Parts: sequence; C-alpha cells; structure tokens
Amino acid sequence: MTTIDRAEANDSGILVWMSDKAQPLELSWIWVRDHSEDPTSLDPVNRQREVDTFSLDRTSMAKSVDLVDGRVQVEWTDGSPTSLLSSGLLSSLSPAAPMARPWRSPSELEVEFVPFDEVMHTNAGLRRWLEAIGRNGFGLVSGVPTDQASAQSLASRIGYVRRTIFGDMWTLSSEVVEHADSAYGSATLEPHTDGCYSHDGPGMQMFACSERTGTGGESVMVDGFAAADVLRSMDPDSFDLLTRVSVPGHYIEAGIHLQASRPTITLHADGSIRQVTFNNYDRSPFLLPAAEMAAWYNAYSAFHELLVDEASWWTHRLEPGDALMFDNWRCLHGRLAYTGTRVFHGCYVNHEDLESRLRVTA
Amino acid sequence: MTTIDRAEANDSGILVWMSDKAQPLELSWIWVRDHSEDPTSLDPVNRQREVDTFSLDRTSMAKSVDLVDGRVQVEWTDGSPTSLLSSGLLSSLSPAAPMARPWRSPSELEVEFVPFDEVMHTNAGLRRWLEAIGRNGFGLVSGVPTDQASAQSLASRIGYVRRTIFGDMWTLSSEVVEHADSAYGSATLEPHTDGCYSHDGPGMQMFACSERTGTGGESVMVDGFAAADVLRSMDPDSFDLLTRVSVPGHYIEAGIHLQASRPTITLHADGSIRQVTFNNYDRSPFLLPAAEMAAWYNAYSAFHELLVDEASWWTHRLEPGDALMFDNWRCLHGRLAYTGTRVFHGCYVNHEDLESRLRVTA
Repeated sequence: MTTIDRAEANDSGILVWMSDKAQPLELSWIWVRDHSEDPTSLDPVNRQREVDTFSLDRTSMAKSVDLVDGRVQVEWTDGSPTSLLSSGLLSSLSPAAPMARPWRSPSELEVEFVPFDEVMHTNAGLRRWLEAIGRNGFGLVSGVPTDQASAQSLASRIGYVRRTIFGDMWTLSSEVVEHADSAYGSATLEPHTDGCYSHDGPGMQMFACSERTGTGGESVMVDGFAAADVLRSMDPDSFDLLTRVSVPGHYIEAGIHLQASRPTITLHADGSIRQVTFNNYDRSPFLLPAAEMAAWYNAYSAFHELLVDEASWWTHRLEPGDALMFDNWRCLHGRLAYTGTRVFHGCYVNHEDLESRLRVTA
Repeated sequence: MTTIDRAEANDSGILVWMSDKAQPLELSWIWVRDHSEDPTSLDPVNRQREVDTFSLDRTSMAKSVDLVDGRVQVEWTDGSPTSLLSSGLLSSLSPAAPMARPWRSPSELEVEFVPFDEVMHTNAGLRRWLEAIGRNGFGLVSGVPTDQASAQSLASRIGYVRRTIFGDMWTLSSEVVEHADSAYGSATLEPHTDGCYSHDGPGMQMFACSERTGTGGESVMVDGFAAADVLRSMDPDSFDLLTRVSVPGHYIEAGIHLQASRPTITLHADGSIRQVTFNNYDRSPFLLPAAEMAAWYNAYSAFHELLVDEASWWTHRLEPGDALMFDNWRCLHGRLAYTGTRVFHGCYVNHEDLESRLRVTA
C-alpha cells in the first residue's frame, strides 16, 4: 500500500513524497484547501465537495505542515479549518496500472468459464468474471439458465441493463424481423463494434445462448487494443490519423435516425488505448481534403486488415447455458455463418458501470 | 433545397458543384464507390453499407460521369455496378446550421409554454417544444398531469427515459433520503451540470412539478454555451485550457463508485461548442504541473464567475403542471433556496435521442 513518507512546505505550497515515487507531488495552497478531507471541506460519505473553491484565498500560507496518523495535516495562518490529505487521496492522483493484457493470438489467452452460481452468489466468482473481462476484454459463464430473466440477472451482477432503442433485453436470431439490421441474419458478420451511432458506445455486451441447432455460427472475438498497438508500431502515421479523424456512424429505421461520431481509436491521456470503434456497415458519409481522405482510406484499410486476420481471432461456438460478456470498447465481435437455430439473449451494460463494479468489488 | 449543379471527372476522381457552394466537392474514385447509393452498395432502408470497402479497386477510372435525375451517375471501365450519388447524400457532407442561439441574458429569450396536449398529440406541438430546446437550451410545457406516468409519457415524446443508477423516473424533493446527494435538500444549488461522472453526461433532463407550497425554490437556467463564448473572447488562454484539461467527476454511494472525465468545454470540429461540463460538488482530485495547475484554477474560476452572474440567469418558479426539459450539455441548472414542499418528477433522456427526434420530426 502506498503511504506518505514526508511532507514539507515551500513558497507556493507543499511537497509530498509518496512511498512509491522518487519525485514529490507539488501541491499548491489552493489545491490543498480545495482537496482537504476535513469534514467542513468534504462530505465523508459521498465525497462531494463542501468547500467553496472559488472563495478560497490562493496565497494564504501554512502555519505548519505535519504528518499525523499517516495523513498530511496543514494548519493555516488565517485560522481556516485544518486541512487533511490522506494517502488514499494522494495515491489516487497516479493512474492505476491498466488491467488490459492485449492479445494478438488466442494462444495467448487463458480462457475459463465461471459457473453461473459462483458469479451470482459469491464475490469471488463475480471477481473472476470481472477480471477476465478486464484482462482479456471478454469473460465467459457456464450453466446459465436459458430464460431471459436469468440472463438479465447475470448481466446485472455487473450493472443494470442499458436501455436503448432495442429496449432492455433483446433476442438475437435470424427469425427476428423487427429490426432491419445485418446482425439479424445468418451470414458471416465481420468483426465490428456495436453502437458507433451512440455518443457512449455500449461498454459491455452480453450474449447468453438459449437455443442452438445446426452447424457453424461460432462467435468471434478480436482484441482491438492489440490490433491498434500493432498498427501503432507498424505504421505510426496511419495510427495517428485514426486517432484524429472523427468517423460518423448511423442507425436508421422508421422514426429513428441516430448518429454519433468519434475517432476509430481514442486514447487515454497517457497514450494508452481507451476505445476502438469500428463498424464499416454503419459508417456515415464524411469527406476530408483529397490527400487526407486517401491517407484515411489507407489507414482504415490497414487497421481492417489487422482486424480480419483470422489468426488473431478467438472463435467459440456458444451452446445453451453459455454466456459471453465482452468489452465493446475493446473487443470487436463477429460471427461465422451458420445453419439451424441460434438464439441469444442479448443486452448492453454501460462501461462506467463495469468500472464502478470493479472499484467496489473486493 | 440544395441541388447538384454539375459533375465532372478529373484524374483522381470527380468534382461536384453544389448549388449552395462556389467550391466543388472533390470525391476520389474509392469514395464514390464506397458511398454509392445503388442497391448493391447500400441498403436503401437502413442505409447500411453493402459494398465491401476493402476490396474496392482504388485506381479504377470512370467511363462516364453524368447528372441524371438530379443525381451523379458514374459508369466504370471495369464493369462495376453504376454508382449513384444523390444531392441528399452530398449535401449531408456539409455541417447543418447550428440550432443553438446562445443567450447571455434572459431578456434575449422568447419563452413559451407549449400545452401538454399539443406536445402529446400533434407533431407541430412536439416540434415547437423541440425547437425551443434546440434554440434556447430548454423548453417548457404546461398542463402536465401531475402523476409520474404522464411525466414519463411527455419525456418519451423525445426519447425513452434513460436508465441510470437512480432508476428510470425519480422523485426530487427534500424528503427523499435514499440518495446522499446535495440535490436532495432545500438549500440554494449553484448552477451545475448533472452526470459529470458518466461517460455520456445525460443529454436532456426534465423536471415536472407535481407539488409546491411555501416560498422560493425558483429553477435557474444559465446558458453554458453563451458563457463559454464570453470566456473565449475575454480570455482565450483560459478558454483554451478548459477545452484541453480533462476534469474527472465522481458519484459515490454504497456499492457504487462512478467516475468519468472530460474537458469542461468540448468543441465540435468547426470550433463551435459541443458540451459544457461543470459540477464543482462532484469534481474528483487531479493534479497538473504547478504552473498549469495555477492557470487551471484561474481559468475554472473565471468560467465559474460567468456562470454565477445572476444577470445571466433565467429563473422561474415551476408550479404543479409545469415541466422544464433542458439540454444538460448546454444549460447549467440551479435552484434557489426554498421553504415548504417542492416535488418534481425527474428523468434523463439521451442527447442522441433528442438529435434523432429532431431529424425525424418534420
């Protein structure tokens, strides 16, 4: 656990040395007051800010800076309430280590099915499923009762089911005709992400198989983060272009015309990959100046080539009782052509709710 | 209506002159094939792409380029299907004129209450409400029955109610104790946006008043786009900083720890303002290098000062039967302190669903 080693004042604020870093944190006077965890400054339960940031004196100096019970304690010359900064607060300023382990071949994966009862009734089972999703971009559950309510209960272990134009839970099979979308068919579907037409692309998607006869129909997962990393090292200009050009997508049916736009690859502040959005079926018209447009087609095609490289696909035929939950910001999903009956209960869960569940599940 | 005036080939593609522009559109050969509206390339109903972008020959030349029935028609030397480009497709490449009319004083507003029955039963009534929201950032409805189901029906004229950690529809009053949030109280609430802890901040928020006694409790709207525009002209460096620094926000209660992050002001590609996110109560700790951190506090405070300028507030006391729907990406909402009972039915609707409704409502 990260602890606070030392704290001392300088002219503009305080320097704090944490146990996991050589360089001190440099905290200005206003930052210290604005982030104090004393109960007049911060609600201890919901951690909403109580202090009025905008009326704080930015120059006021500390009378003393001490380490008391592992926390930085600052007394002020102007008699303001004592400021307190915990190691938990200060260590949260450093980004957490990423959970994702990009994989470029299914041989790099350790895949397990966590039994439904363990996910539903134990924190350890839930945590195993969550960690697989965080690490590999997808996680599997076995023994799921094939009714829709059970599938919904399973998804709700991570977060409430997202409501969309498709409702809450939906049924995916070639017999569904209410939505005129290529997903509702039996042909091969190239790996893609869902919801490029949503400002917040669905974070998680779950397929729980309830009926299966015939041949084929394997589910395909490909790690978009790993593919993007390959593109970054092979062809940095193309990678860069795909992080800059915002690509629109749409969904159109009677009474609905959704549209949203974002770069194919978006990054975190530290340059790591945040989200991949790729759905050539739903891409909307956009036009760049001629040279950039040509470069974009090259870059987009180079990325596509990496995504359709079958050596990088994890494929698996889901049978009744199997559920696949995947990170739709990271893993593209596809399907091989099939015959017979193939019925899935499907739903979306928000990415933020996965992140929340990971934070609160010990 | 924009029409196609002329189309002619050059070496790398075709040039198309639209009736509303002096400069031609420059469309490469691959772009033309990739966007053709012939039925082998594009599904005419859902407008999903049928052509395989990635196997298109990028160098193949046109045999002929003509204007036929108002559309560009291209025949190919390699015998590919004839490509067709409509004026609707080509005019969609230009950004639509923005609906938003920023207001910096309530005197600039023309505010009307659209009767509930007109919104519910006529497209013209719905359109009046939608256009007020698009233009001013908020729109009002009168005569709303005070039960929750009626409020939900009203919101659903724009889009389905978003499901969140608060459920679907919620009740806002100082008597609600299930959520430990400052919104559930009777003190003054400074103008803020909701859901800074959501990746997709709630697009629309609705308050439908069902009970009201006592004094005060006026609802406050302030146009964040107008305030940001003022900041941009007064202090461009601060404006720029607020578009670059990603600010995290959080929501914490038992079993929930949501967090998301985005710049206070985000922009469209053309530099116009897309979204304002401002909630000092929920802001999470983050740290920048000392000089930038100081500049950020200055910029954030300058923006805050513009937002709390009461001369720029539209204030109105909602009475039973009144509903206020506002764009939470644009208008900050606040509340004056109150006594007595003040009960609202509340809900969120996604921004993308407002945009969709605007596209499909004639």
